[in-house]
Amino acid sequence: MVMTPAAENRQRGAVLVVGGTHGNERNGAWLLEAWRRGACRLACHGLAVRAVIGNPDALAANRRYLDHDLNRSFSPDRLAAGDTGDRETVRARQLLARHGPDGAEPALVAIDLHSTTAAMGNSLVVYGRRPADLALAAAVQQRLGLPVYLHEGDPAQTGYLCERWPCGLVIEVGPVGQGLLDGAIVRQTRLALEETLAVLAAAARRELRLPPQLVVHRHRCTVDLPRHGDGLPAAVLHPCRQGRDWQPIHSGDPLFAGPDGEVGGTDAGAPGLPQGMATAWPVFINEAAYEEKGIALALTQREVWPTASDWAEALAHLAQRLERDQRGGPL
Amino acid sequence: MVMTPAAENRQRGAVLVVGGTHGNERNGAWLLEAWRRGACRLACHGLAVRAVIGNPDALAANRRYLDHDLNRSFSPDRLAAGDTGDRETVRARQLLARHGPDGAEPALVAIDLHSTTAAMGNSLVVYGRRPADLALAAAVQQRLGLPVYLHEGDPAQTGYLCERWPCGLVIEVGPVGQGLLDGAIVRQTRLALEETLAVLAAAARRELRLPPQLVVHRHRCTVDLPRHGDGLPAAVLHPCRQGRDWQPIHSGDPLFAGPDGEVGGTDAGAPGLPQGMATAWPVFINEAAYEEKGIALALTQREVWPTASDWAEALAHLAQRLERDQRGGPL
Repeated sequence: MVMTPAAENRQRGAVLVVGGTHGNERNGAWLLEAWRRGACRLACHGLAVRAVIGNPDALAANRRYLDHDLNRSFSPDRLAAGDTGDRETVRARQLLARHGPDGAEPALVAIDLHSTTAAMGNSLVVYGRRPADLALAAAVQQRLGLPVYLHEGDPAQTGYLCERWPCGLVIEVGPVGQGLLDGAIVRQTRLALEETLAVLAAAARRELRLPPQLVVHRHRCTVDLPRHGDGLPAAVLHPCRQGRDWQPIHSGDPLFAGPDGEVGGTDAGAPGLPQGMATAWPVFINEAAYEEKGIALALTQREVWPTASDWAEALAHLAQRLERDQRGGPL
Repeated sequence: MVMTPAAENRQRGAVLVVGGTHGNERNGAWLLEAWRRGACRLACHGLAVRAVIGNPDALAANRRYLDHDLNRSFSPDRLAAGDTGDRETVRARQLLARHGPDGAEPALVAIDLHSTTAAMGNSLVVYGRRPADLALAAAVQQRLGLPVYLHEGDPAQTGYLCERWPCGLVIEVGPVGQGLLDGAIVRQTRLALEETLAVLAAAARRELRLPPQLVVHRHRCTVDLPRHGDGLPAAVLHPCRQGRDWQPIHSGDPLFAGPDGEVGGTDAGAPGLPQGMATAWPVFINEAAYEEKGIALALTQREVWPTASDWAEALAHLAQRLERDQRGGPL
């Protein structure tokens, strides 16, 4: 979303905070709902924050989605298509019509609260390399030390919600089983959310100083479980892998184990890292919702990037257009 | 199920091992399927073991059940009713017609493999106080040290699968998110299963000596989250409770925390243990599937029971009627 200078001058906007984009990730949604009811205080740092439930029907059904993953429903092609016959595309269009950057109640930044069954801890996900996103992630990383997964170059996974707002990121917290409320997950979600809002407020005041560097875990590829011809997993993740997101693995380290505990778990031997990859940092290890996507884990490259002056500039430029708080945060 | 002496003499039977009674508890089902394919060895100790998938349609859908919890579908009333309109009652009748004690391929013992999102570790669940069940649990407990949850006296939760076989128990392993394969959970499930079979084989040989005592955690009651009038949870489990199944709590210890972390989370104050209960041992803390049942955790009483001679006798009597292995373990 590139705004022309004319459009920028016309429009101010809020910060959109979305919980329950996946209906069985309940902790962020619960936090926002508690806030809406006045049952908790959320530090908004003077910003106008609009909280919405991404997929209320899926939340009520305690399912990730009804027809199609909402967080894969925001690709321009899908949004522009006619009747796709799925409820999530309808919902994506609704969210954009109301809260999109050109919506009835426009938002300029989207913060999307997710949880995962993987042991990601408290972490951030950014999509691609938009300068304002990178600035936001770098500043939050400096304050809280959170790891950042940079998702890009994966044609099989597109259409993320955040991408349709001028700036945005995902707060991803785990491990927590699907459908579970967990106080520690709520607390971590809240911590990352409040700090992200604090960074935006500082940027709006032109008081944000970025750290000299951003550590990213850049997406490289995904790996599925070895499977029998009929699709049944022939192996599970090796116990050495389970629960160790962000920890590097090396060529030859086992990824999978067969039912008797044997490394590899397939007649073809012991599959490890893909050919030519000496070291990788796995993320989303055993995320329950990714099995249908054929993803047992994603492999990343840890990289240290110097922050660029245009990152801070892009974020400051956007943040100065953020509305000030005038009311609460209606769902 | 009480067998008359005449019926006992007529009939020999196998050990039934059920995985996937809940379709999103995949670890036991995966182990049995791997065994069926010859991809792993399972120590059956010479017994004829029949492995079945409890709810294959729910397993394919990765859901606990389709219409009605299969592990609440075995009550005599439900089984005897006409068309109940749910697929799980049909399936319960199928399982009994084929593998029930009077079925076409009769089984005398049922071992039902479950997993849970609660941190139950590797544990056993028995229903009521049938002597053979208690003997089996005591012997497995002696060998592996597993805690035993004795479920009884809960009119809201009835119709468990195991209850329809002359002897049976649940192997309950966690924590693992719904829908997840986890090598450690598979390994623990297998350990408990193989040891249970070893005990049955020893009983069949009249070589079983029970330990002097059985430690049970006897069911007392369940507790739900505090809720708003519309059902939304007003609080989550207190972080001190999460992941601490089997660990005693005392009157006044917090059970819940509100969205700002405040103990209790309700205007009514800080609910703790029910009135008159000084100490309790919680189990199934934050089991995802129990929210719909209004259960945030179950409270038990830890008790040490001397084993009784009639327990060993009941198990030996039954075990001597177990078939010897003649083939593998078809699903």
